[in-house]
Amino acid sequence: VSGAQPTLNGVPGFRLGGVSAGIKKRGGLDLGVIVADAVVACAGVYTTNLVVAAPVVQSRAKLAAAPRARVVIVNSGNANACTGARGEVDAAEMAKAAADAVGCDVRDVQVCSTGVIGAPLPVERVRDALPRLLDVTRVDGLPDFARAIMTTDTRPKQRGVRLTIDGREITIAGACKGAGMIHPNMATMLGFVLTDAPIAEADLVAVWGRVAGRTFNAISVDGDTSTNDTALCLASGAAGGAPLQGDALTRFEAALEQVAGELARDIVRDAEGATKLVAVTVQGAPSDADARRAANAIATSPLVKTALHGEDPNWGRMVAAVGRSGCPIDTARVRVAVGETTVFAANAWAGAEAEQAAHATMKTPEYGVTLDLGLGEGRFTVFTCDLSGDYVRINADYRS
Amino acid sequence: VSGAQPTLNGVPGFRLGGVSAGIKKRGGLDLGVIVADAVVACAGVYTTNLVVAAPVVQSRAKLAAAPRARVVIVNSGNANACTGARGEVDAAEMAKAAADAVGCDVRDVQVCSTGVIGAPLPVERVRDALPRLLDVTRVDGLPDFARAIMTTDTRPKQRGVRLTIDGREITIAGACKGAGMIHPNMATMLGFVLTDAPIAEADLVAVWGRVAGRTFNAISVDGDTSTNDTALCLASGAAGGAPLQGDALTRFEAALEQVAGELARDIVRDAEGATKLVAVTVQGAPSDADARRAANAIATSPLVKTALHGEDPNWGRMVAAVGRSGCPIDTARVRVAVGETTVFAANAWAGAEAEQAAHATMKTPEYGVTLDLGLGEGRFTVFTCDLSGDYVRINADYRS
Repeated sequence: VSGAQPTLNGVPGFRLGGVSAGIKKRGGLDLGVIVADAVVACAGVYTTNLVVAAPVVQSRAKLAAAPRARVVIVNSGNANACTGARGEVDAAEMAKAAADAVGCDVRDVQVCSTGVIGAPLPVERVRDALPRLLDVTRVDGLPDFARAIMTTDTRPKQRGVRLTIDGREITIAGACKGAGMIHPNMATMLGFVLTDAPIAEADLVAVWGRVAGRTFNAISVDGDTSTNDTALCLASGAAGGAPLQGDALTRFEAALEQVAGELARDIVRDAEGATKLVAVTVQGAPSDADARRAANAIATSPLVKTALHGEDPNWGRMVAAVGRSGCPIDTARVRVAVGETTVFAANAWAGAEAEQAAHATMKTPEYGVTLDLGLGEGRFTVFTCDLSGDYVRINADYRS
Repeated sequence: VSGAQPTLNGVPGFRLGGVSAGIKKRGGLDLGVIVADAVVACAGVYTTNLVVAAPVVQSRAKLAAAPRARVVIVNSGNANACTGARGEVDAAEMAKAAADAVGCDVRDVQVCSTGVIGAPLPVERVRDALPRLLDVTRVDGLPDFARAIMTTDTRPKQRGVRLTIDGREITIAGACKGAGMIHPNMATMLGFVLTDAPIAEADLVAVWGRVAGRTFNAISVDGDTSTNDTALCLASGAAGGAPLQGDALTRFEAALEQVAGELARDIVRDAEGATKLVAVTVQGAPSDADARRAANAIATSPLVKTALHGEDPNWGRMVAAVGRSGCPIDTARVRVAVGETTVFAANAWAGAEAEQAAHATMKTPEYGVTLDLGLGEGRFTVFTCDLSGDYVRINADYRS
């Protein structure tokens, strides 16, 4: 598996499509669907925000009862969040309409909504568009689906890989949307990854939980979590054979992480106002959880993110962010590197030459920053972006 | 007590001054001192960052051993942070030099440093300037002291009140510096409040802890805490009489909070790039700690802060910030008000007219936002500012 490519347009066992249902004010594709040929294994990871949109509440409950699905129906342009009892009725109606149109149990329908918070969902437009939507679904329909779930994204995001495991040709492909929770009331990140690999339900749930933790849950645009975030993984088993186990399952997990990782990084690359994709790695922490806390503090610090924008190897801001993160730190043991260049170690600045080399690395659009805390084996990487004047301009615009 | 004024230039029992010692590259006052006529009660609140500057480590230890001081010596232009063993030696030298010059025990000297992180402190310049500094100290020297502690501040910050308690004329006055930890490697907030009220040491420690929690620890510019933050309160007792107790002490605490509160808000008013001072109040939370978590999440959210800059009553971003804060929330019970105008209640937007009224409030430079969670009696207010393009420009500037 040498790279997740944006050119794989479908996965055996699934049909996908997208249409315009009239939900987005400005028009364009705004209703997408994934229909599996039969009920398949499905694992979901949802927002941890306590303010949860109705579709998330219902879809989460369904997968908690049984990790499987037949249909994923997604609208953009309206988040159906902070909409009270009416929102719950609308989300249930949307699921029921999709179940009726496909001819399946409503419990096997996952519903996702993304867009404006606090406005009622025009569910009748979803119902009216459903026959048309099912008509256009096809095996290579991922590009239309990827477009239908976009809100403030400047481009659709899809990635896929093909690999051979135990002599079987396996496809993994998916799409996502999101530019951080950075647009007026847009609610926000959705990710969908499909595979034809045969995976036992319980394995898919475990694998997806780990993979999402290292991909969709390891990116930061602005530190805000949304009310609608959802990442689903569906496995059709169309590649045939018995469920993957042992080493085969491990190889599958690595490939899945590659696809989900590229999709997640595509969100950061498309983050509004952003010009840099920066991998912030904290290693040598007492534990992985400590490393995660420290990396997140760095990746969400406005001071660090403005320094990234200014291409300034400002290790002081990074070290200070770790200091308030809850992760233990002893500055005498800390080494900070930008790319391959050490800029701070043993309580001392590495000098002007190192700083110039680091500055040169920071002029490139994608690079890594590493803080080795020298305390243990804990390690975590978060992908973040710079904070630019464009971010402020976009988000300070009064809603029109 | 009707308002803390920036015109009180001293407090009986203290002499203050500031000189240029050549620590700041660009020149200007950079060494300030407060000398009490005798050893007085002194309470301190310090940064919670685990990366702590040497002067903070030493000064904190002294007050932990005995809450009293004779001298506070402060330099700007250099934070003496991330400077390792040499930094510890330099901070101790600075205290020793001040103790020798005044003729007091080194344990009664508080040392504060603020400025660039990671550069060695030129302690010999402090030592050389000390005789000159002590020569210029005077009872009404607060303005020079306030200037000597500035780094990126655009103006000195001093506030004071006079009031009568139990027939005694009491003065409370102080100065602070800081514009958030928002300038390249500037480390950051310092606050000093003096009073001639007679206060028992233990009472001063308790009162100052509470007051600092509601003032210097209830402001946010960018969510970053620094390596050098220090707030000291010194009580000379020069007003005479027995230590204040009971209602008199309570009245003193209220006046102290007023002075410290105005000083803290002056920091937010002077925050780089900021154009608004916004009081974010969360009430109706299960507990004060929950309210504090929720208010801090709102006050530090880049999405909320850009909306404040855009004068956009974007309640969705505020509610979503509470949802990820750890504070319980049930959107059906939440009411959001901007100034006096309710913009969201009972899971519904309050309409275009309310939004226009809220927008008008947000055009003013200072106002409040209130989220009533409808769950309990917990309440907390955080003062924050907007996030502007100027903030990004200032902080993205490559260090020169």
